Amino acid sequence: MAAKLTPPSEDYPRWYQEVIQRAELAENAPVRGSMIIKPYGYGIWEQMQSVLDRMFKETGHVNAYFPVLIPESFLKKEAEHVEGFSPELAVVTHAGGKELEEPYVVRPTSETIIWDTYRNWIQSYRDLPLLINQWANVMRWEMRPRLFLRTTEFLWQEGHTAHATKEESHEETLRMLEVYARFAEDYMALPVIQGEKTEREKFAGAVKTYSIEAMMGDGKALQAGTSHDLGQNFAKAFDVKYQSAEGKEEYVWATSWGVSTRLVGALVMAHGDEQGLVLPPRLAPIQTVIVPIYRGEEQMATVLEACSKMEAELKAAGARTHLDDRDQFRPGYKFNEWELKGVPVRIEVGPRDLEKGEVVLAFRHNGEKKTLPLEAVAKEVLSVLDEAQKGLFEKALKRREERTHSVDSYDEFKERVNGGGFFLCHWDGTTETEEKIQQETKATIRNIPFDAPDEAGECMVTGKPSARRVIISKAY
Amino acid sequence: MAAKLTPPSEDYPRWYQEVIQRAELAENAPVRGSMIIKPYGYGIWEQMQSVLDRMFKETGHVNAYFPVLIPESFLKKEAEHVEGFSPELAVVTHAGGKELEEPYVVRPTSETIIWDTYRNWIQSYRDLPLLINQWANVMRWEMRPRLFLRTTEFLWQEGHTAHATKEESHEETLRMLEVYARFAEDYMALPVIQGEKTEREKFAGAVKTYSIEAMMGDGKALQAGTSHDLGQNFAKAFDVKYQSAEGKEEYVWATSWGVSTRLVGALVMAHGDEQGLVLPPRLAPIQTVIVPIYRGEEQMATVLEACSKMEAELKAAGARTHLDDRDQFRPGYKFNEWELKGVPVRIEVGPRDLEKGEVVLAFRHNGEKKTLPLEAVAKEVLSVLDEAQKGLFEKALKRREERTHSVDSYDEFKERVNGGGFFLCHWDGTTETEEKIQQETKATIRNIPFDAPDEAGECMVTGKPSARRVIISKAY
Repeated sequence: MAAKLTPPSEDYPRWYQEVIQRAELAENAPVRGSMIIKPYGYGIWEQMQSVLDRMFKETGHVNAYFPVLIPESFLKKEAEHVEGFSPELAVVTHAGGKELEEPYVVRPTSETIIWDTYRNWIQSYRDLPLLINQWANVMRWEMRPRLFLRTTEFLWQEGHTAHATKEESHEETLRMLEVYARFAEDYMALPVIQGEKTEREKFAGAVKTYSIEAMMGDGKALQAGTSHDLGQNFAKAFDVKYQSAEGKEEYVWATSWGVSTRLVGALVMAHGDEQGLVLPPRLAPIQTVIVPIYRGEEQMATVLEACSKMEAELKAAGARTHLDDRDQFRPGYKFNEWELKGVPVRIEVGPRDLEKGEVVLAFRHNGEKKTLPLEAVAKEVLSVLDEAQKGLFEKALKRREERTHSVDSYDEFKERVNGGGFFLCHWDGTTETEEKIQQETKATIRNIPFDAPDEAGECMVTGKPSARRVIISKAY
Repeated sequence: MAAKLTPPSEDYPRWYQEVIQRAELAENAPVRGSMIIKPYGYGIWEQMQSVLDRMFKETGHVNAYFPVLIPESFLKKEAEHVEGFSPELAVVTHAGGKELEEPYVVRPTSETIIWDTYRNWIQSYRDLPLLINQWANVMRWEMRPRLFLRTTEFLWQEGHTAHATKEESHEETLRMLEVYARFAEDYMALPVIQGEKTEREKFAGAVKTYSIEAMMGDGKALQAGTSHDLGQNFAKAFDVKYQSAEGKEEYVWATSWGVSTRLVGALVMAHGDEQGLVLPPRLAPIQTVIVPIYRGEEQMATVLEACSKMEAELKAAGARTHLDDRDQFRPGYKFNEWELKGVPVRIEVGPRDLEKGEVVLAFRHNGEKKTLPLEAVAKEVLSVLDEAQKGLFEKALKRREERTHSVDSYDEFKERVNGGGFFLCHWDGTTETEEKIQQETKATIRNIPFDAPDEAGECMVTGKPSARRVIISKAY
């Protein structure tokens, strides 16, 4: 490794850029605001995709694919939707050597083309629910791009479902929010707060938007997934009706929900430290790395043989394992490199260890070491990884709890908000107050948490009555 | 089911469209030449992706992701490349509410942006080989679009590898062609002919292009995958050099290779028949469908219970199984529907079968039936599916052999070529003759097969000497 990473406490944004660059996750592309996702970063996304795809299928969804280009006129059919997305559109005006009669926009999200299609797919209540997901690239022309967090092109999944009743679509919206929360907590090792977005922050075209909000290493919030109850807005805009069992014509009820490659950035900021990336075992492309330690050719032969055997055993046990047998680098160099890349468990294998019939395991998330008998490694690797997964979640939860504050005075809030963290405050429910808070502090209402207790209070800004606290924080 | 399918013998293109529509694979999108891939069609593509992705990883490749937009100037750096793709480009000229200083093209393929990136990734021989694959959407503005076969947007994978020597890149080109051939034969049940494309038919920017060519149900050829030896063309265009172990600066050697959603179209045309789709078990989203047969509620309860039990057993055995327990349709209707959708094995479960302790299996690819003891079904399902897989391949191979003809007279060729089939003919190796054949017959040289025996002969058009036969055929 070359120079040390900038410590996150010194310059967090710079640390973030350096980790992404040195851990070889991604880099800026020669296309404004776009990124190239490098193999190691893409490997994390592949793990995410594989878990999420299984979770979607287990909840009854199937995948399909809709065009990346959308006729410009489609966007205009839902008034709030076009207003929200217009400033961010990339537009194809020429194709096949000619100017197009009607321009196409590169999809910023696919509600419009999908609901235009659903009009033909849905006639009767028997066609419902329609539970479709799409894995795709989308484009939003961001003014201040940042690798993974805000890029003009990003990869995501977007679920688009159609239902016969308001109740069913509402249930689906919350079901998928819960899927996202389970994914964040159980796989990303990232505690999240489920809640409703304010009117001002909801998706352009939605009736209600729900989010999961996570705390990053610097105490800022990151919206890690959203699920939208679209009501009948898109069904009305695209004239999608069904005949009910009773023979009545009704507009269809809709949801949409998505998570994106932004989650890779969330993973970096949620768990990363002075040494670089810290990956949760369940999403790490490499879960265990074996580093041989030897001097001279004789030792090398013995040690590498033991390492190869262990590699095969660990893989057979179901652990994604890499044996770093590069001869041109010393063990210390390799330790640093795999720490930088966030590999959860390092296994050090040296001649003295082998003589004693044991190896040393080093945990990335807390720096602790553990000695195991050689023959126990494969048997215990999955529980060792589980232990690391849990430890990482506990660490993140503890940090969030330490940095979550109930604050009742707006002066106190203004004083403390720059230090980062989540602030549980009373708010009078108006957009005016919400805007005032943002203008004066740059913090925003993240969501209205489902699990906030009913607790009468007074808005910290206006003193008007409030029934429960909301989370306010600076955010990515 | 509504009306019968148009028989393929009567109107093949119409039969193709009808199968795709009625089996719910895809439909035309409200975007010129684009398609919407419906869940069942996308399910086939997912099976293909999953197998191919594993094959790529087993041969040492990793995935990454590059931007969908490419600066227009990049395309112009490789002269043949820009000439080949210019007429087909879709161009983004506006974004974020402004006209762009330099337009972006929507990638028709990614050699240019990837080799621009490789310039920074490759310095030394230690950085080589670089073995990267990308799953992505691409766009080529087709004048005569056709679902799956030629659509303006399609999904594909594109491998882009970098090597230290000409020999290594050549080996890689052939290795990946072989991977495609194995995929086509072992998974798609589709015999293919590996060979070299003519100079005229090679990829724009390649030194040599190799293809696998398959015969469709009407005797026409379909290019099912290509692998390109790019030599140093892109390394020179993008100035990508490496320092060899001996300290010399050298240009890097390149390959690229791809297959696309076109393969779903190939699957339809390779095996489909009067009843619709015929899917090879290894790629079928549903491998076995259980259809209960009953009258009255009492029978229904007994039969459905047995069916549910069998469904669970078949899934546990590793067969992708669907139980069609819809009460509103009769068994005959369901038989037709699952035949149309090409499900390899149908399992009929009726009260009389249950009394005898057996069930009837019906094979889609040959219409044969087989009775199995109830308790044997789960045990034997995988070998039954293997049997169907082999049977389908044999059938396709037999048809290809019957429709492959060695022809030495150009008059005979012209007379027979409209009847379809592969023609093994002598050709003098010139582009002039190749163009003459195409102009006069609309047939093209598919490839120069690797396994064609050395056999001196005379070009059927000019009488000039030829060392081996090439395949000529009409093609998709």
